[in-house]
Amino acid sequence: MRKTDVLVIGGSATGLVAAMTAKSNYPDKEVTLIRKEEKVMIPCGIPYIFSTVGNSDNNILPDGGLNNLGVKIVVDEVITVDPKGKICTTKDSGDFSYEKLIIGTGSLPVVPRWLKGTDLQNVFTIPKNKVYLDEAHQRLDGMNRIVVIGAGFIGVEVSDELNKAGKDVTLVELLPNILGATFDVEFATDAEKLLASRGVKIKTNCGVRELLGDGSVKQVLLANGDVIEADAVILSLGYAPNTELAKNMGLELNAFGFIKADQYRRTSLPDVFAAGDCAEKVDFSTGKLSRVMLASTACTEARTAGLNLYELNTYSTFRGTVGIYSTCIGESSYGVAGIIESAAVAEGFHIVTGSFTGVDRHPGKIPDAHSETVKLIVARQSGVILGGEVMGGKCAGELVNVIGLAIQSHMTVHDLVMMQIGTQPLLTASPAGFPLIKAAEAVTKQLRVH
Amino acid sequence: MRKTDVLVIGGSATGLVAAMTAKSNYPDKEVTLIRKEEKVMIPCGIPYIFSTVGNSDNNILPDGGLNNLGVKIVVDEVITVDPKGKICTTKDSGDFSYEKLIIGTGSLPVVPRWLKGTDLQNVFTIPKNKVYLDEAHQRLDGMNRIVVIGAGFIGVEVSDELNKAGKDVTLVELLPNILGATFDVEFATDAEKLLASRGVKIKTNCGVRELLGDGSVKQVLLANGDVIEADAVILSLGYAPNTELAKNMGLELNAFGFIKADQYRRTSLPDVFAAGDCAEKVDFSTGKLSRVMLASTACTEARTAGLNLYELNTYSTFRGTVGIYSTCIGESSYGVAGIIESAAVAEGFHIVTGSFTGVDRHPGKIPDAHSETVKLIVARQSGVILGGEVMGGKCAGELVNVIGLAIQSHMTVHDLVMMQIGTQPLLTASPAGFPLIKAAEAVTKQLRVH
Repeated sequence: MRKTDVLVIGGSATGLVAAMTAKSNYPDKEVTLIRKEEKVMIPCGIPYIFSTVGNSDNNILPDGGLNNLGVKIVVDEVITVDPKGKICTTKDSGDFSYEKLIIGTGSLPVVPRWLKGTDLQNVFTIPKNKVYLDEAHQRLDGMNRIVVIGAGFIGVEVSDELNKAGKDVTLVELLPNILGATFDVEFATDAEKLLASRGVKIKTNCGVRELLGDGSVKQVLLANGDVIEADAVILSLGYAPNTELAKNMGLELNAFGFIKADQYRRTSLPDVFAAGDCAEKVDFSTGKLSRVMLASTACTEARTAGLNLYELNTYSTFRGTVGIYSTCIGESSYGVAGIIESAAVAEGFHIVTGSFTGVDRHPGKIPDAHSETVKLIVARQSGVILGGEVMGGKCAGELVNVIGLAIQSHMTVHDLVMMQIGTQPLLTASPAGFPLIKAAEAVTKQLRVH
Repeated sequence: MRKTDVLVIGGSATGLVAAMTAKSNYPDKEVTLIRKEEKVMIPCGIPYIFSTVGNSDNNILPDGGLNNLGVKIVVDEVITVDPKGKICTTKDSGDFSYEKLIIGTGSLPVVPRWLKGTDLQNVFTIPKNKVYLDEAHQRLDGMNRIVVIGAGFIGVEVSDELNKAGKDVTLVELLPNILGATFDVEFATDAEKLLASRGVKIKTNCGVRELLGDGSVKQVLLANGDVIEADAVILSLGYAPNTELAKNMGLELNAFGFIKADQYRRTSLPDVFAAGDCAEKVDFSTGKLSRVMLASTACTEARTAGLNLYELNTYSTFRGTVGIYSTCIGESSYGVAGIIESAAVAEGFHIVTGSFTGVDRHPGKIPDAHSETVKLIVARQSGVILGGEVMGGKCAGELVNVIGLAIQSHMTVHDLVMMQIGTQPLLTASPAGFPLIKAAEAVTKQLRVH
C-alpha cells in the first residue's frame, strides 16, 4: 500500500490543474496523479492534429508543470475506490491510501444507441485518447470521403481540418445550422457560409438514420432517404460524463448523470471532490443544471477543488458555469459567452439585444483588418448582461473574454457603455466605433425610459 | 445668428462621439458640431500614414455616423464663446446660440521652450492635423536621416513606420527605456530590443540639448555632447491640453492646465461640458489628477457628456481614468492597464506582483503561436487589481482589455483565479496555462496567510 495525501484521478486538463493547484497551495502535502494515458492530449487541440499541427505528438499536454512541483504521476487504471477506508486500487500499481481525493475522469464521446452501424469499421469518435486517435488518423490518411455527423465545435473543427488535409468532407447536422446550439442564427449562418466556401459540404436540417456497410462503413443513410458514400464516418455528437468509477464508489449523480458537486466541488462523500466534465454544472445565470463541458470551465473547477481541499475559502468558489466558447475558421473567429438570444427567450428572460458591426482594426485600411460584429443579450429590467456573441478576426477569441468577464462580474450594459478600453490601430477596433461598446449603446437606447 | 440646441466644439474622437451620443439620446434636439478640419484624422492611426496605410487619406475619421443621425457639421474656427449669453462666434459662419455646449478641443503637441532650434525647417511634431501631416509626410519622403525625440507610444510607432519606409531612424529618449513611462522595465526592454532588431537606432538615457542647423535642421546635439546628423527631426514629447478658448470664456482649469470637469463632465460654468484631452482627468486608483490622454478614454468622457446633457444619470458617470494602452511592433504587442509596479510603489501602495509567461495558442506548435507574458499588480491587503501588463501576439490588444475591465469592476485577484475564460487552440493560450490566470495564481500564493 502506497500512501499519498492528495490523490487525483484523471490526467487531462482537470487532473493536471487540480494536482498543480493542490500542490502549490498545500506544498507540505504529497500529491499523486493517476492517469490511464502515458501521453495526454491537449483536449481542445485534438481537431488540429489532422492538419494544422500535423500529428498528435505535437499536441501533448506537458508534464513539466507537475514534475516541477513534485506531483507524482502514476500511469495506471483505477479499478475501485473504497471511500470509507480511503483506499484506491489500481490495476497494476497496487493500492493507494489518501486523505483527499479529486475525481477528474472527464467525459467520453456519445455513441447513440438508436443509431445502427456505429460498430462498423472506420466509424470513429473523437475521444481524448492518443492511442485511439493515432490509429484513427492513420486510417483516415488513406481515405477520401469522410462524413462527419454532428456540427458542434468538434464536428466543425474536425471537418475544416480534414478538408484542409485534402479530404472530401461532408458535415451532417440535425439542427438548421452548424453550431446552432451555441450561436444565434445570424452568427451560425455566417460560420456555415464560410465553412462551405472552404469546401466542406454541409447538410443541415438533416437527421441520420443508419450507417450502412459490410464490415466497414460504406454509406450514411439520412432520415430523408438520401445516401452519402463514405470511406469513414466521424461521430461528433457530444460527450457524456465518465462516471463509472464514481457510481461504483457510491457517489451521488445528478439528473443529467454528472457527479453532484457543490461550490467548493465537494461531492456527496466526505473528502471526495469532483471537477471537470464528470462533475455537476449549474448555469451561472439560470441556476439550472447544465451539460456544458469546456476545458476552461474544467480548469476553473479544478482550481476550486485544489484550493478548498484542506481549508474552505469563500473567495475560491465555483459560481456556476458561464459557457464561453470560441472557434476559428481560416482567418475568421466566432465566440460566445453566456446565454444566446434564443436560449434566453426560451428560458423566460425578458431581454433586449443590441448588435453592431465594425472593423477590428482602425483605420479599416490596415492590411489585416477583418469585420467585427458584437451582439449583446441583456436582461430588460436590470440591464445585467446575460450573454454576448462575437464574430471577427483572430482577436475575437480574447474579445469574447471581455464579455465573459462582464457577465461574471454582474456588470450592467450601462457599465459597458462607460467602459474604458485600450485601442490600437493594428490590434483593435477604434474607440469611437468599438463594436462591444456600440452594441451596448444600442441596448441602452432601447432601455431608456421616456 | 444660427440656433442649435447642442453645440459641440472639436471634430476628433471626442467631438464625434459626444455629438453622436447627444443626438442618439436626445433625438429631438438639434446637434451641431463645429470643427476646424475639413477632413479629420483618426488620431491613433496617424503614425501608420507613414508606411502601413500609405497616406493620410487612408486614415480619415468618417462623417457617416454624424450624417446618418442628422448632426450638423460646420467646418470653421470658433473665435469666442459668451457663456452667459450662450453664444458662440465663429470666424466665417457667424454666431451660434446654444442650450448646451460640449468642449472637445483636444490637445496640441508639446514643443519645449527650453529646447533651442525647434523653429528650424524640417523639425516636425505630430499634431492631429491633416494639412500639416501631409506636408510633413511629403517632405519626409525625400529625406533619409530622421531623428525622433521622445520614445512614448507616438515616438515608437512613428519610428517603426519610418524605418519600415526605409528611412535611417534614430529614436532618442531621456528615460532608461523606450516606453519607460508606461511599462515596467522587463516589458520596456523587450519592446526596445525588438524595435532595435528591426533597424531603429535607439539612444536611451539620452537628453537633447539643442537642434542645430542653418535654416534647416542638420544635427541633434545631445546632452552628452554627441551629435546625430539629421535631415529631419520629429518631436514626440507628449501633448498639452488645448484650452485657449476655454480660458478665454472663463472656465476654470486645474493645476495641470486641464478644464475642470466632474463625473458628468460638467465644467465650472452652467450648461458647459468638457471631454477628452482638454478635460480634467482623475486617476481611477489614486484619486490624483492625471495627465493621461487616450482616444479611448476621451470617447468614454464624450459618451458621459452626451448622456448627461439634459438629464443626469448616475450610471453614466466617468469614474476616473484607467490608462489602457497597447502598441504593436511587427507581430508582437505590448499592452498595459492601470498602474504599473514602479508607479504603484512610488505612490505608496503596498503591492504584490505576479508574472507568467506562456504561449498565446495551444499547443505551442500552432503556426502563428507567440510567447505571451502577463504581469499583475495587486494591492496586498485587499487583493484588488491595480494594474496589469501584457506582451504577446496581436491578441494581447484585447487581452489587456480583460485586465482593464477587471480593474474597472474592482475585481480582486481571487476573482481572476476563479475566472472562467474562453480558450481555443488557434486563438488563445490554453486554459491550464492561461498567463492571466497563472499570474493571478502567482499573486494569490504570496497573499496566502499561513
